Amino acid sequence: MGYKVGLDVSGGDKGISEILKGAILASSDKSIDAEIVLIGHKNNIDIELAKLKKSNEFTIIDAPEIIDMGESPVAAVRRKRKSSIVLGINALKDGAIDAFVSCGNTGAVVSASTLTLRTIPGVERPGIAVPIPTRKGITILMDGGANIMPKPLHFFQYGVMSAIYSEIVFNKNNVEIGLLNIGEEESKGSDSVKKIYKLFSESTLNFIGNVEPKGLFSGECDCIVCDGFAGNIALKVAEGAVEIVGRFIKDLVKKNPIAILGVFLLSGTIKKLRRKVDYAEYGGAPLLGVNGIVIIGHGRSNAVAVKNAVKTAVKELSHDINGEIERKINAICQDSRIREILT
Amino acid sequence: MGYKVGLDVSGGDKGISEILKGAILASSDKSIDAEIVLIGHKNNIDIELAKLKKSNEFTIIDAPEIIDMGESPVAAVRRKRKSSIVLGINALKDGAIDAFVSCGNTGAVVSASTLTLRTIPGVERPGIAVPIPTRKGITILMDGGANIMPKPLHFFQYGVMSAIYSEIVFNKNNVEIGLLNIGEEESKGSDSVKKIYKLFSESTLNFIGNVEPKGLFSGECDCIVCDGFAGNIALKVAEGAVEIVGRFIKDLVKKNPIAILGVFLLSGTIKKLRRKVDYAEYGGAPLLGVNGIVIIGHGRSNAVAVKNAVKTAVKELSHDINGEIERKINAICQDSRIREILT
Repeated sequence: MGYKVGLDVSGGDKGISEILKGAILASSDKSIDAEIVLIGHKNNIDIELAKLKKSNEFTIIDAPEIIDMGESPVAAVRRKRKSSIVLGINALKDGAIDAFVSCGNTGAVVSASTLTLRTIPGVERPGIAVPIPTRKGITILMDGGANIMPKPLHFFQYGVMSAIYSEIVFNKNNVEIGLLNIGEEESKGSDSVKKIYKLFSESTLNFIGNVEPKGLFSGECDCIVCDGFAGNIALKVAEGAVEIVGRFIKDLVKKNPIAILGVFLLSGTIKKLRRKVDYAEYGGAPLLGVNGIVIIGHGRSNAVAVKNAVKTAVKELSHDINGEIERKINAICQDSRIREILT
Repeated sequence: MGYKVGLDVSGGDKGISEILKGAILASSDKSIDAEIVLIGHKNNIDIELAKLKKSNEFTIIDAPEIIDMGESPVAAVRRKRKSSIVLGINALKDGAIDAFVSCGNTGAVVSASTLTLRTIPGVERPGIAVPIPTRKGITILMDGGANIMPKPLHFFQYGVMSAIYSEIVFNKNNVEIGLLNIGEEESKGSDSVKKIYKLFSESTLNFIGNVEPKGLFSGECDCIVCDGFAGNIALKVAEGAVEIVGRFIKDLVKKNPIAILGVFLLSGTIKKLRRKVDYAEYGGAPLLGVNGIVIIGHGRSNAVAVKNAVKTAVKELSHDINGEIERKINAICQDSRIREILT
């Protein structure tokens, strides 16, 4: 048995049973070389595992407290020292586990990770790298919401880190990096944007310049960097827009028997589409830059999503992504041209 | 004949002929009390009007220069003094027309308007108020991209202006205003956000607090204020997300005869859906806060969208929206509690 991956059982909207099913899927998948360590309320886990006829098959770290999805992250992390998120991150720091996967409160995972694990030497601030399905494959958006007021160096390091993630987890080469912007003109706007531009342009990275929001889905580059506020808005708006269109369709179809038949004939296509646009399929979003492997799953993750997040964690571990980030960030940031721009 | 509405014939992705068809629709619509003044390349307009058998039916302001969609707004407005956008805004300032409608380069319309018309007395910065279709009706997002680094007072005034627009154009009462944010926690973040909060909370406006990006489509409030960067990203991401899902469906359906039949049976529903989510239907987005009535249409506006934008302009004129904005902004900003927060 290879790596120990800690799984936050208290996180996620679908409840403990769904997460446990994911743990079972992951541990029975031969392509995943990992032992799953369950982190959550031990009594509840035992009851659910018994129902699933998997009693005593997992190591459990008892974490009786729960940080809810709506809770204020920093306060919750400070107060709930026995929550699955805090104990999971502590276990990661202590080496009891090699990676931590949570579908719980994103802000709390970011806070606990940043406070406890600190960053990889050379990395200034962590960020969430979110895989987005496009017509041409996966595009990574970073930051998805960890850092709402990043400095130019943070943007630059997000480019470096998301490119490494793209290479390791999605097997890409010569990764193209773009900067999310609302048009060509704006790039000339603030001093901060000018500096970000210059950092990327002068570096050895494959920087393609500004990318308009539509580029998120067209797949025109492999990685798109942005601040966590814009990134989070983009992700949630995309979800919301697709959802509302689905609801509009449902509202319209309800009144029309021919349309109902149409939807019935399309049900196979809709299933395939769901799989294509569902980020459950893409293995969660790593919090890159912290000194440890942390994967954040979508709150609505199902068992398959949990399994895929564990798979991503193992891929990152086996390729030593954090060692690679440390080497590359330090090599690139030592470059005299880059240092000159930053001073 | 009531108002004179200037129409930029050179703007829009669909070309001059589509815009002219919109002009014809608007002038033949008895509910629109306006004379349309065409602003664009006179020779081209004459040729197209002849094709449409409407020669000599419109007043034309000859504007031989064209500002392209991709051009840098500020530079283009400075250089192309004979463009439809510059001459249209000049005509508005001089009183030759009462309102200006353009589906052209948004940045150029904003720049020309701001430079030439200046703001309504008391208004600090203009912003674009974009109507968004939700399940419960129209929600206004402001700012859609005019002001990428607004100050707290700008946010506050966007709230006031979008509420007035909501009342006048969409016949709403007791308009609810929300602040676009990525979660509860962030509201406690920066001093700027704290100040925005306080301004709204202490005012007589009906402020409901933070609204998550999904609230854009759920219709949980009537107006959502945000900075122009986030607003523009949100709008373009929403469009892009819906488009990509449409393309995914096309890709999947192509290979499947049953699915093709399903889509065929749904074609009526899809048409209705298009009409529901197409902002062509909602009359363009006014640039609120400048001293004149300026309506920005989507680049892809068709004839109906052009007609609806003209209709919005007339509605704003007949209700004296700018007089109302001036009165209300000055009354609200004179309030001692508001002044105290701002000092």
